[in-house]
Amino acid sequence: MKIIDLQTPCLVLDKARLIANLDRMQAAVDRQGVALRPHLKTAKSAKVAELAAARGARGITVSTLAEAEYFADHGATDITYAVGITPDKLSRAKALMDRGVNLKIMTDNRTVACANSDFSKAHDCTLQVLIEIDCGDHRAGLQADGPDLLAVAGAVEAPAKLLGLLTHAGHSYGVDTAGQVAEIAEQERAAAVLAASRLREAGHDISVVSVGSTPTALFASDLTGVTEVRAGVYVFFDVDQMSRGVCTADEIALTVLASVIGHNRAANKILLDAGGLALSKDRSADHFAPRAHYGLLCDAETGTLLPELSVTSVSQEHGHVVVEDDRAYDLLPIGAKVRILPIHACMTAAAYDRYNVVDGSAEVTDTWDRCNGW
Amino acid sequence: MKIIDLQTPCLVLDKARLIANLDRMQAAVDRQGVALRPHLKTAKSAKVAELAAARGARGITVSTLAEAEYFADHGATDITYAVGITPDKLSRAKALMDRGVNLKIMTDNRTVACANSDFSKAHDCTLQVLIEIDCGDHRAGLQADGPDLLAVAGAVEAPAKLLGLLTHAGHSYGVDTAGQVAEIAEQERAAAVLAASRLREAGHDISVVSVGSTPTALFASDLTGVTEVRAGVYVFFDVDQMSRGVCTADEIALTVLASVIGHNRAANKILLDAGGLALSKDRSADHFAPRAHYGLLCDAETGTLLPELSVTSVSQEHGHVVVEDDRAYDLLPIGAKVRILPIHACMTAAAYDRYNVVDGSAEVTDTWDRCNGW
Repeated sequence: MKIIDLQTPCLVLDKARLIANLDRMQAAVDRQGVALRPHLKTAKSAKVAELAAARGARGITVSTLAEAEYFADHGATDITYAVGITPDKLSRAKALMDRGVNLKIMTDNRTVACANSDFSKAHDCTLQVLIEIDCGDHRAGLQADGPDLLAVAGAVEAPAKLLGLLTHAGHSYGVDTAGQVAEIAEQERAAAVLAASRLREAGHDISVVSVGSTPTALFASDLTGVTEVRAGVYVFFDVDQMSRGVCTADEIALTVLASVIGHNRAANKILLDAGGLALSKDRSADHFAPRAHYGLLCDAETGTLLPELSVTSVSQEHGHVVVEDDRAYDLLPIGAKVRILPIHACMTAAAYDRYNVVDGSAEVTDTWDRCNGW
Repeated sequence: MKIIDLQTPCLVLDKARLIANLDRMQAAVDRQGVALRPHLKTAKSAKVAELAAARGARGITVSTLAEAEYFADHGATDITYAVGITPDKLSRAKALMDRGVNLKIMTDNRTVACANSDFSKAHDCTLQVLIEIDCGDHRAGLQADGPDLLAVAGAVEAPAKLLGLLTHAGHSYGVDTAGQVAEIAEQERAAAVLAASRLREAGHDISVVSVGSTPTALFASDLTGVTEVRAGVYVFFDVDQMSRGVCTADEIALTVLASVIGHNRAANKILLDAGGLALSKDRSADHFAPRAHYGLLCDAETGTLLPELSVTSVSQEHGHVVVEDDRAYDLLPIGAKVRILPIHACMTAAAYDRYNVVDGSAEVTDTWDRCNGW
């Protein structure tokens, strides 16, 4: 089947670009001498995990227990669940361990650390715990130099086991030069290494010092003391990453295929059948790429950008493309298909249960599944 | 099972509120003497369709062919697909008709009108066509007084059949008083009636004059000349509708159940396990309810609002609740559950494949499925 014969909206995944992105990240972490544990919250696809592993990735990261269960179904045995767990999710964690998964869970608070210890004792199992550190993103996590770190670590009692710590420099999305990203990467490293060092001084055996975001993973100048890097969106990239200089448009592997369903010339608009659900309402590229709106239009067959054309607004099932030059109506007649570079690949992909895979031509060569939900 | 025993994030649907919302809308259209054809793009659930039909709804509206197929699987026989169709989707439309569905499709352009006619001739079937009118929303649709209307109508040739027209006053979301909504409802009615009258003068037999949006359906003062009203989000309502005065918080039937996964006191934040995927990144309430951000927090068991607490920012799997009063940490300890009133129910519900149904208590009494995708 050809791309333009697919029912719309749907995802089109360019395998050659995906593989180039996997290779680029693996080379970046290899240069630093650390392990890559890809964060599969973006792709949520066993096929992508397989391709990353074949290039040297060691273990995977997930953002939901549903992902962990899906990847375990597909043979994954080394999984880090990198969102703070709650006590009522521990039985799902144990079920994964009982299936042979080497699962790492994470928390940043004493209540859950104690619950992990109590659960491990009650069920005679070893929950493996990472402590989350806030390296400047101000999402979750403890301060690396704060008093809570040792208290939380101390609450992880045998048979539960403290493996180490994890941090995520989400604030690397707030800048748009390699130099600024490198500075944040150093903050991320420094916080992780400081926390590891304090824990070791307190007598803990720390084997995992995990950092990562796509920008810091690619642009870090030194990762001394770090054991592994997690990154996710690099597998596909998106306009958000492009707007920050992390990738080019030619590296974006994921697009949404849409059809032209109307021309509203009175409103200077082309209407597409890809709206808020098909693209997501993520506007994270607004700061550095305000003209990208909800996505950039590309030729359906070649994937090359159509200059000046973006999805300027969305309703649930409509993408609105405001047209400044009437020649756009001829370029995109009714029924024509177009591909859209997504603003935030993680959000966009989540509306779909499969990828239509192309490999350097206009032919769809494969269909890969993905998991969603919790 | 009790609400607080559910794994998070998940949807909780209050059946009593749902039924009150269905009754309110049915009563509103009954007063006008027109039919209600609920737009099931919000609920996407056969159970909701069944409850609406039991109260007098006649037929359903859908926004995707996947919805049409799902509802046909559940016995629906009268379906309007209210997004402009493209020629390559006509075979799916025909497959529905072949299953006995009285399907209405829609377009606003001559290319598709001709394609409908050609397809009907080639396959010896009767595609039933509605023409979309732009009544001021400036999304899709023809001008009711413009020259294209008769040209598109004329292109619908036997055995295809022109049934009538459809318009949607999406711009009713741009105002926040009943009086302003009533004015827009009159624009919507007037455009539809003008288009119907021009088509009838040109010799077309027009049986469908379809209007609708939740605000205009509820606040229209007169619907003379209209045959049916479509509305969707009223089944659940949401903060977006509340911010425009269309409903109260107590009428919002859909919530997202989430767990407290962390306290980042250094950043004045409570962290929830419901982020951008669980809530959507819709910000449509910003204009009239800027403090609602990504959703308003409620008590998990009673569903009553927790004053001053909202999801102030999101990342993929994290909801960030900025805390101005430290007592919030005691109110929402680690592991506690909370319900979140969604900004835009249609967008939020789409991340889930089921509703956990409660009926006036803290007990989950049922699970209803829903369809997603295209």
